[in-house]
Amino acid sequence: MSTEIVEIKKPKLKNPIFIEGLPGVGNVGRIAAGFLVEELKAEKFAELWSSSFLPIVLVHKEANAHLIKNEFFFWKGKKRGQRDLIILIGDSQSSEPSGHYEVCMKILNYVKKFKVKEMFTLAGLSIGEKVEKPKVYGVVNDDKLIKKYKKYGVIFDSNKVGTIVGASGLLIALGKYLGIDGICLLGETIGYPVLPDPKSAKAVLSILTKSLNLDIDIEKLDKKVMEMEEFLKRLRDVETRALTQFLKGLYPAKPKEEKPTYIG
Amino acid sequence: MSTEIVEIKKPKLKNPIFIEGLPGVGNVGRIAAGFLVEELKAEKFAELWSSSFLPIVLVHKEANAHLIKNEFFFWKGKKRGQRDLIILIGDSQSSEPSGHYEVCMKILNYVKKFKVKEMFTLAGLSIGEKVEKPKVYGVVNDDKLIKKYKKYGVIFDSNKVGTIVGASGLLIALGKYLGIDGICLLGETIGYPVLPDPKSAKAVLSILTKSLNLDIDIEKLDKKVMEMEEFLKRLRDVETRALTQFLKGLYPAKPKEEKPTYIG
Amino acid sequence: MSTEIVEIKKPKLKNPIFIEGLPGVGNVGRIAAGFLVEELKAEKFAELWSSSFLPIVLVHKEANAHLIKNEFFFWKGKKRGQRDLIILIGDSQSSEPSGHYEVCMKILNYVKKFKVKEMFTLAGLSIGEKVEKPKVYGVVNDDKLIKKYKKYGVIFDSNKVGTIVGASGLLIALGKYLGIDGICLLGETIGYPVLPDPKSAKAVLSILTKSLNLDIDIEKLDKKVMEMEEFLKRLRDVETRALTQFLKGLYPAKPKEEKPTYIG
Amino acid sequence: MSTEIVEIKKPKLKNPIFIEGLPGVGNVGRIAAGFLVEELKAEKFAELWSSSFLPIVLVHKEANAHLIKNEFFFWKGKKRGQRDLIILIGDSQSSEPSGHYEVCMKILNYVKKFKVKEMFTLAGLSIGEKVEKPKVYGVVNDDKLIKKYKKYGVIFDSNKVGTIVGASGLLIALGKYLGIDGICLLGETIGYPVLPDPKSAKAVLSILTKSLNLDIDIEKLDKKVMEMEEFLKRLRDVETRALTQFLKGLYPAKPKEEKPTYIG
Repeated sequence: MSTEIVEIKKPKLKNPIFIEGLPGVGNVGRIAAGFLVEELKAEKFAELWSSSFLPIVLVHKEANAHLIKNEFFFWKGKKRGQRDLIILIGDSQSSEPSGHYEVCMKILNYVKKFKVKEMFTLAGLSIGEKVEKPKVYGVVNDDKLIKKYKKYGVIFDSNKVGTIVGASGLLIALGKYLGIDGICLLGETIGYPVLPDPKSAKAVLSILTKSLNLDIDIEKLDKKVMEMEEFLKRLRDVETRALTQFLKGLYPAKPKEEKPTYIG
Repeated sequence: MSTEIVEIKKPKLKNPIFIEGLPGVGNVGRIAAGFLVEELKAEKFAELWSSSFLPIVLVHKEANAHLIKNEFFFWKGKKRGQRDLIILIGDSQSSEPSGHYEVCMKILNYVKKFKVKEMFTLAGLSIGEKVEKPKVYGVVNDDKLIKKYKKYGVIFDSNKVGTIVGASGLLIALGKYLGIDGICLLGETIGYPVLPDPKSAKAVLSILTKSLNLDIDIEKLDKKVMEMEEFLKRLRDVETRALTQFLKGLYPAKPKEEKPTYIG
Repeated sequence: MSTEIVEIKKPKLKNPIFIEGLPGVGNVGRIAAGFLVEELKAEKFAELWSSSFLPIVLVHKEANAHLIKNEFFFWKGKKRGQRDLIILIGDSQSSEPSGHYEVCMKILNYVKKFKVKEMFTLAGLSIGEKVEKPKVYGVVNDDKLIKKYKKYGVIFDSNKVGTIVGASGLLIALGKYLGIDGICLLGETIGYPVLPDPKSAKAVLSILTKSLNLDIDIEKLDKKVMEMEEFLKRLRDVETRALTQFLKGLYPAKPKEEKPTYIG
Repeated sequence: MSTEIVEIKKPKLKNPIFIEGLPGVGNVGRIAAGFLVEELKAEKFAELWSSSFLPIVLVHKEANAHLIKNEFFFWKGKKRGQRDLIILIGDSQSSEPSGHYEVCMKILNYVKKFKVKEMFTLAGLSIGEKVEKPKVYGVVNDDKLIKKYKKYGVIFDSNKVGTIVGASGLLIALGKYLGIDGICLLGETIGYPVLPDPKSAKAVLSILTKSLNLDIDIEKLDKKVMEMEEFLKRLRDVETRALTQFLKGLYPAKPKEEKPTYIG
C-alpha cells in the first residue's frame, strides 16, 4: 500500500489548528468542513492520494481527470482571537480497513510538520431516527479537553458514543501518540449514509465557529449543500458500484442500464 | 500493513518471563491474563497498535478515545522463587490472517529486547460441550518443556489439540526461531466465542500461578469476570458489526447502543 | 505487494510518446495498441509483472510458461512529423484494487526515465447498446489538451464520461503529478466485457494515427481481431475461473480445456 | 506481507538441481517430492514461513507446535551421473493470491545462492476423470528443454495444459528471469483436491528419477502414501475450516461437532 502527499505550496503557518471533514455518515463532517473552506476562501496547498482508495478517476469540468483524493487547505487568522487553520476535506476515506491507519498516520505526520498541536475531527453520529435539533457530542483524546469544550455546548457521554469508525476516530486516537490534542465533534444524524444531513453539519459548525472565533454565516449552508448534494450522491454511487464490480470480477465493467459512467 | 509499539516507560527487568492473554475462544487467555495484571497490580509500560486491527476507536470513561490495542505490563518478583513478568493483554487480535504474523513478530522482537527466554501463552480449547472441571492442555515449542510442566498437571496430547489458531500458537512457534522456550496453556471450554469462560480461565491460572510461584487468590476471579463480561461482550459485538459494515459498503457508520466500559 | 520491470534492452529514444492499451471493457485499448505494435513492428524492450496479477502462468506455443505480464515496446519515428513511441500492452490489469495504483506508478516512473512528456491511454466507454459508428471521447489531465485534440474529432463531455476505472484513468491522473500530459481516448462500445469490439478499437486508432501522423492501414484490424479474439476470450475465462478458485478454496487447481495461443 | 527463511545449516552443494513439490491438485507434487526426501534420506537445512500462510500452528508428536511451513532438504549425489539436489516440500502454498509471488521469489532468490541453474517443479494436471495410466505433461521456461525431456517420455502439448496455477508454474516462469532453466512435470489426475493421487505421483517420479539417474524403488510409494494420506487430509481439513472461519468472523472458533481441533 502506498499513500502520497503532493505539495502544491508551502504555507507559513503560526500555531495552526487542524480540522478534518471527510465523507462519512450523513456526510456531516464533509459538508461542514467543505463549507468552511468555501466561506473562508481557504487555499489548497496539498493533495493526498492512496492506493487504498478505489482505483477510479473522477471526470470534472469539461473532461478533466482527477484522482480520488483528500485535499489540504490553509487559512490565516485575520483578527485577534483567530488562529491559522489547516482544513482537510476529500472525496473518500480508505476502502480497505488497514488503509485507514496508513492514511491517518500520513495525515498526522504531515500536519505535525506545521507544528499542529490541536485538532478537530468532524463526523456524524448515527442515531437511527430523524432529529429536529441535532445535538453535538464530543470525544477527546485527553481529559482536559472535556472541560474546555463543555462550555461551547458539546455533550460528553460515552453511553451515547461507544465507538467511532474510520478517520475521525483514528486521527484523534493516533494523534495522542504525536502529542496533538484532539476532539471529535459528532452531530446527531439519522444515519442513512446516502442522505447528506446539512442540519447536523450546521450544528457541528455552530460549535466549531464559536470555539475558533470565526465569522461565518452558517445559514448559507443549506444552499451550498444543495449544490454539493448531487456531486456527493454521484460520488457515492460510483464508488459503491465500483466496489461491487471489484468484488464480482476481474475487469471493471460499466453497468449497462446507466449512461455516462463506467469505463474500463 | 504497519504495527507500532509505543513505549510509556522503560522498565529494568531481570530475566523476565513473558505471558500472553489476548481475546480468543471463551476469552480464556484474556480473562486469565487480565486478572493477573489486576491482582499483581502490574504496571503498563507499552502499547501496541496495528493497521491489521479494525479501524475503530473505543470510547471509554466520560468520552475518551482509545485505539484498539494490545498492552504490555510488567511486574517485578517480590520474593525468592518469583520471576519478573511481562504480561500482554489487549482488545483484539488481528482482523486479517497475515496480520497475525506481523503482530506476533513485533511482540516477540520487542520482548526479546528484555532478554525474555521463556513464555506462556494462554488460550481456550474448544470442546463443544459444557465441562464441570476443565482440564488444561499444553503445547510446547521444545520437547524438554513437556516433562517440566507435566508435574504441574498440564496434559500433553496431540490427539486432543491438533492445531492452534492465532496469536497463542504463532507466538510459541515463531518464538522458537528466536530462542524463546514457550508453552501454550489451553483450558477446556465449550467454545462459543460470545461466552467468556471464567472456569476455564481459573484452571489455566491455577497452573500458571503454581508454575510461577505467585500468591494470588484465584477465587476472586468470578467477581472480576462479571465486571469484564459486559465489556468483552460489547467489544465483540462492536467489532463484528464494524466488520460487517466494511464488507457491506464503503463508508463506516457509527454503531449505536454500544458502551464498552473499560476494565483493567 | 511487489511489481518488477525486467529490461530486455535499453532503447535510445528521442522525446517519446507513451501509449497504453491494456485489457478492459470491450478490450478496446488492448486491441488498438496490440494492432499498433504489430503494424509498426515495434520491438519489445521490457516486461512488467506484479504480485497483484493472478498467480497463474499461461502456456504458449508448444509448452512454454509465461507469467501474466505487461509488455513495453518501442518504435522509432521514420519520417518528419513522426515521434518515437513507447507502447504498453499486456495480458491483464491488477486483480486487486490497490494493485492498480502500484502498477501504474511503476509504469509511469519507468517511462519517465525515457523523458516521456506526453501519453495516450486507450480504453472503451461502455454505453450499454450496439453502436454503428462509435464516437471517441477524451478525458485529459490538463485543460490545454482539450483544444489540441478537438481538432482530431475527439469529443469532450463529462456528462458522458463521469469516471474511468483502472489503468487508463489512473495513468493520466497520476501522470499529472509527474509532469506528463495525458489524454485518455475512449471508444464507445456496448460494454459486455467478454465481447472484444474491433469497431470501437478502429475508431480510437483512427484518431490516434492522425494525431501521431502514423501510416497504418486500419482496415486490416478486422482480420487481426479474429486472430486475437480467441486468445483474449480464453485468457478472460482462465482468469475468471482462477479467481473463482481462489475465492472458493485454498489450493489452486489447474483449469482444463484452455489453450490460449499467443498473438503479438 | 513477510516471508522468512530460517537456515538450520549451510550445506556445500555442487551445481545442485532444485526440485519443488508443494501441496496442490491431487497432492501429486507433494507426494512425489516427499517420497524422494524419505527415500534419499535427504537432510533438512532450511525452513520458510510466510504471513501469507494461514495463521495456525500444527501440533505434531506429543504436543509440539509447528508453523505452517515449507522445508528445504539437500542430498548429495552418490555416484557418477548423479547431481546434488535441493528439494522443497511443505505444508501449504500461500493462502493469498499475491503471496504466491512473494513466496516464489523468496524461494528462487534463496536457491540461487547455491548456484542453482536447473529446476523441476512437480504438480498434478486435473483432467476430471479417473485414469489408469497417468501421462506426464511438461511445461518449460525455455524451448531447448522440450527436446531434452521428450526422450524421457514427457509429453509437451499446450492444448492439454493451458495454464498452471500457483507455485509450480510461477517458479519456472519467474525463474526464467533469474537464469534458471525450469520444467514443470504434471501428472494426470482426476483433480478432486481432497483425493491424494499416488498413481500420478508415481508417474511423475518415474520420469524424474530417470532424468536424475536416481536409484529409488518407486513401488514403495503406495505404502508411504497411506501413511501420508491421513496427515495430508487432516491438514487440508484444518486449513479449509480455518479459512472459512476467517471469512466469516473475527475470532477463530472451533467448529463444535469436532473434537480435537480448533483453538483460539
